[in-house]
Amino acid sequence: MGQKPLFLKACAREPVERTPVWLMRQAGRYLPEYLKVRKEAGSFLNLCKTPALATEVTMQPIRRFGLDVAIMFSDILVVPEAMGMKLDFLEGEGPVFADPLKESSDLKRLKQPNVEKKLGYVYNAIEEMRAALPANVPLIGFAGSPWTLATYMIEGGTTKKFTKIKTAIYKDPVFLHGVLNALTDTVIDYLNGQIDHGAQAIQVFDTWGGILSPKNYQEFSLKYMAKIVKNLKKTGPDGAQVPVILFSKGCGNYSEEIAASGCDVVSLDWTADVKKIRRKLGKKVAFQGNLDPAVLYAPEAVIRKEVKKTLKLFGPEPGHIFNLGHGMEPDMDPENVQVLVDIIREESTRSIAKQ
Amino acid sequence: MGQKPLFLKACAREPVERTPVWLMRQAGRYLPEYLKVRKEAGSFLNLCKTPALATEVTMQPIRRFGLDVAIMFSDILVVPEAMGMKLDFLEGEGPVFADPLKESSDLKRLKQPNVEKKLGYVYNAIEEMRAALPANVPLIGFAGSPWTLATYMIEGGTTKKFTKIKTAIYKDPVFLHGVLNALTDTVIDYLNGQIDHGAQAIQVFDTWGGILSPKNYQEFSLKYMAKIVKNLKKTGPDGAQVPVILFSKGCGNYSEEIAASGCDVVSLDWTADVKKIRRKLGKKVAFQGNLDPAVLYAPEAVIRKEVKKTLKLFGPEPGHIFNLGHGMEPDMDPENVQVLVDIIREESTRSIAKQ
Repeated sequence: MGQKPLFLKACAREPVERTPVWLMRQAGRYLPEYLKVRKEAGSFLNLCKTPALATEVTMQPIRRFGLDVAIMFSDILVVPEAMGMKLDFLEGEGPVFADPLKESSDLKRLKQPNVEKKLGYVYNAIEEMRAALPANVPLIGFAGSPWTLATYMIEGGTTKKFTKIKTAIYKDPVFLHGVLNALTDTVIDYLNGQIDHGAQAIQVFDTWGGILSPKNYQEFSLKYMAKIVKNLKKTGPDGAQVPVILFSKGCGNYSEEIAASGCDVVSLDWTADVKKIRRKLGKKVAFQGNLDPAVLYAPEAVIRKEVKKTLKLFGPEPGHIFNLGHGMEPDMDPENVQVLVDIIREESTRSIAKQ
Repeated sequence: MGQKPLFLKACAREPVERTPVWLMRQAGRYLPEYLKVRKEAGSFLNLCKTPALATEVTMQPIRRFGLDVAIMFSDILVVPEAMGMKLDFLEGEGPVFADPLKESSDLKRLKQPNVEKKLGYVYNAIEEMRAALPANVPLIGFAGSPWTLATYMIEGGTTKKFTKIKTAIYKDPVFLHGVLNALTDTVIDYLNGQIDHGAQAIQVFDTWGGILSPKNYQEFSLKYMAKIVKNLKKTGPDGAQVPVILFSKGCGNYSEEIAASGCDVVSLDWTADVKKIRRKLGKKVAFQGNLDPAVLYAPEAVIRKEVKKTLKLFGPEPGHIFNLGHGMEPDMDPENVQVLVDIIREESTRSIAKQ
């Protein structure tokens, strides 16, 4: 067995020679080579469900930029689909559940799936990805948080106002908790399966936690993520620790509560008050983040300035994985990603050497 | 002169017998009587620009619910229009600036308007509204924050991703500061004119402050709002104090900095940690907020529970104006608004009497 990869060291708050880096949505539409495979696949769901193609797009940013971590290419909504909800991705509209959940009587439509059977294509992809990746590049598996998945299942797709699910909070919390409980059980099974098949770290994406009041965030989002963290396998088949990363967008405020879930890494977006959070929690968890993705639209000198600021905010103690505060956008320039990655390497190597 | 209205007492953190209440976007599409006038007006901009019609829709929620404050009916985007930008409201699409600002050379297109001339229709409306309102119902004037106005002027309309203005932050901050400075000067003139013509309080709406990093919020949003606060007339033509309310959506985190601007009232949305903020700042400023608007989709018992929670969070010291954390939505039921207002009256009278 070789040296522990940088990313896994950083997750464990062990010293590193430079800050590991990956980018949320690093496999995606900003890459011409992705668009080519996406076209071949015919549909987005077919891309997710064909292990060879999912593996190819997972590898693309690793090959191109030499990033320190890969994240399996998939979509968070394969989970509700596996539970029995018909899912479509409409061009220009995003995901659509034609028959959204409305009330408690709809709960019987949600099946607890045999994940090996229903989501076996993800596990096959993980095995292919792990075989294709260099030994020093770990593979992250992931799932959506129950709250975030429920927004799509109840709204019927993407939404700006979250009217239906927020109505459920106040009008029918029993129904909503029913949905969240069912999702939590499935997500636990699904993620443990990912670990069994070779995922070396797990990230839970809670994209919509930030629309909730503090009390509702606790009750409808964090509580279920904490249950997931508690029920995940702590080690993979090779005996290595499997760190868990929680990312609740717009929830820097709740970092203490998030850290108390028992997760290993708190992922922050660019609105978080990193200095304060780091001071309070730096001995308890590692952090991931939190560059404003829009910095990728800027010239090199600005990218360098912002990278240095970010490294300084999270430093100097160990326990930082460099990432964006949210995902890559289709109109971003891959050349700027290379610039960003090179600068992170250079600046973090320098600042760590100085200590 | 009669008694000081409840709302103005609360803004000054003076004791009140019950908590005053108004609702952001209280004049709007959820009211059938609004829809009737909106139809008569032909276009949304025409409704804003016809003092008699703007007055009528301003009065509607006062008449119907007996709210404690009126807010002049208008739109934040009349300011960039007065500065020379062509504005349209397209059905189902919202506001559109067909020729958005792109770079410093576009700054010459922004005129510092003679507000009495260019925005005289707003001032005429304010005078009509003031004449129509009962003496104990103050009239709030308002403007968008420079940052929020700039998002529309640079993006060309509403946006989900804010790509263009965020690119400007990192790529061309000189251009962006040029836009913000021009807007700040005009907003100061515009709001002082509102005070001259009868607005008894001012609210600055910073709907998009929350998409910024802490440092960028300070530099691109709050700095300009603070300049506005400093340059507003402190008293109206009748010699009464004119309180200023700042509302940066999603910025509960920054309440200390917002309060340091010198504003009288900090308006909070439902994601704010009210208890903590209140503890820290309760002697310095009053607060407005912060019920999750989605509570209006719930049955009466839930509305009561949530109102009581909100009153408790902000109490027991004086200095609370009850409001939603954001605006009314078109699909909300006016009957539930009446229920909400009645409950706020009843519960706040009771809890204040107990002290």
